[in-house]
Amino acid sequence: MKLLRHGAPGAEKPGLLDKDGKIRDLTGIVPDIAGAVLSDAGLSALRGIDVEKLPEVTPGTRLGPCVAGTGKFICIGLNYADHAEEAGMDVPPEPIIFMKATSAICGPNDPTLLPRGSEKTDWEAELAVVIGKTAKYVNDADAMDHVAGYAVANDISERSYQIERSGQWTKGKSCDSFGPVGPWLVTRDEVADPQDLNMWLTVNGEKLQDGSTRTMVYSVAYLVSYLSRFMSLHPGDIISTGTPPGVGMGMKPPRYLMAGDVVELGIEGLGSQRQAVIAD
Amino acid sequence: MKLLRHGAPGAEKPGLLDKDGKIRDLTGIVPDIAGAVLSDAGLSALRGIDVEKLPEVTPGTRLGPCVAGTGKFICIGLNYADHAEEAGMDVPPEPIIFMKATSAICGPNDPTLLPRGSEKTDWEAELAVVIGKTAKYVNDADAMDHVAGYAVANDISERSYQIERSGQWTKGKSCDSFGPVGPWLVTRDEVADPQDLNMWLTVNGEKLQDGSTRTMVYSVAYLVSYLSRFMSLHPGDIISTGTPPGVGMGMKPPRYLMAGDVVELGIEGLGSQRQAVIAD
Repeated sequence: MKLLRHGAPGAEKPGLLDKDGKIRDLTGIVPDIAGAVLSDAGLSALRGIDVEKLPEVTPGTRLGPCVAGTGKFICIGLNYADHAEEAGMDVPPEPIIFMKATSAICGPNDPTLLPRGSEKTDWEAELAVVIGKTAKYVNDADAMDHVAGYAVANDISERSYQIERSGQWTKGKSCDSFGPVGPWLVTRDEVADPQDLNMWLTVNGEKLQDGSTRTMVYSVAYLVSYLSRFMSLHPGDIISTGTPPGVGMGMKPPRYLMAGDVVELGIEGLGSQRQAVIAD
Repeated sequence: MKLLRHGAPGAEKPGLLDKDGKIRDLTGIVPDIAGAVLSDAGLSALRGIDVEKLPEVTPGTRLGPCVAGTGKFICIGLNYADHAEEAGMDVPPEPIIFMKATSAICGPNDPTLLPRGSEKTDWEAELAVVIGKTAKYVNDADAMDHVAGYAVANDISERSYQIERSGQWTKGKSCDSFGPVGPWLVTRDEVADPQDLNMWLTVNGEKLQDGSTRTMVYSVAYLVSYLSRFMSLHPGDIISTGTPPGVGMGMKPPRYLMAGDVVELGIEGLGSQRQAVIAD
């Protein structure tokens, strides 16, 4: 299934994408794409409904982030060997963990707000993993049982805030609108191999990222297990698994986003996003 | 007012501490100590109720974290000059921001769970600031209008996870139970000067932290304003403002928590916490 949320910011309703690409409304069927709905039992119940009987949503309705009730937006740093190289950093001996503020989460096609005074806002196409079942001290072998599904994320980053403004990356990762997630949550059963997905990103139509989850250093299963040793993961938590090469910071000379730019990105089987960059 | 939450983990009810030190139940009066209840209007409405008519809560009932709906648990690093010195670090030219997972939040007297394999779990008594009104690009002069009140927090930290396990402090700050907040949220009007509060922490009765918010580098007002330039702050968000000297990492030799230890801490006018340390 491809689960999504549609409507105005803060007032999104649950929905799904049917096999013909139409958005159907799940209002009254589930309270939201969140919590217990993300469990195996919750997803199984949803699979049993007659999609044809669900009302269609008006085409062009805004999409919100595809999951609600996200308590943690955990990101993995330098998780593609070739991206670490372009960033001038070594591949870390263990996953690097940092947090994006959950207030940064937005819809896949919402505008990107350039923070006031920002001069180094950058893009990072990433595979996002959505947790479906609480995970604490889980083994690699059991880790995938805790995953509800996958989505596209853009880990938008202000590089001067992240690196030049006194310690800890979260400062450059958490600005409002810096976390588009969606368009939909593709359930785990529909992704044959999360470690074999092509991914891409363009700025104003020019392809700048063109990678694959094949080159991830630490796999989805490993990351879920690893993180669960440091903190409990709960349904709705998002893990953004790092970006392949092609970010602005790695270009010579570096290239950053300006008002008027348009960023588009996507992952094989998971859909695509489009963000217009505007001043905040 | 001293607002609090009482009951079993995950099923807490709102309450308050009356002038005689009795816990009164606010069930049916407000949905929770969260969201709009934390606004000036929400707090003002609460001040109008007749506390004597509220049911008393059975003494000894567990206290939960004093605020709910926390989207962000933002911490400030090295915000006391003398603590920076004991940590062997310089006072930063701008506030250091990192995140604790919101899943680390717990009640003020809940046990501290030593993560499996942990050998360097440490304490940090801190003044926590609870946001009452959304803040974005606010000036220092207006910042305090966005504060609902204050609470005691213990920014429990696994130092090897934080410092020795590949990048970004959040890894050592986010374990389950690492964020006791409470016992109560003391509303802003009852704290004459948040920059003049004595604070203390003991381990097994031995006083190890004995400081004052007077020695903070960046004030509460400055921090609210500063953070609001990087991300919107929302009602229920918590800012933990850093710790004075006396953490285990700074002792010679360093001293860390072991199962069986008891940590107590408090801040003048804000009450105290007590955590028994146990294996997870």
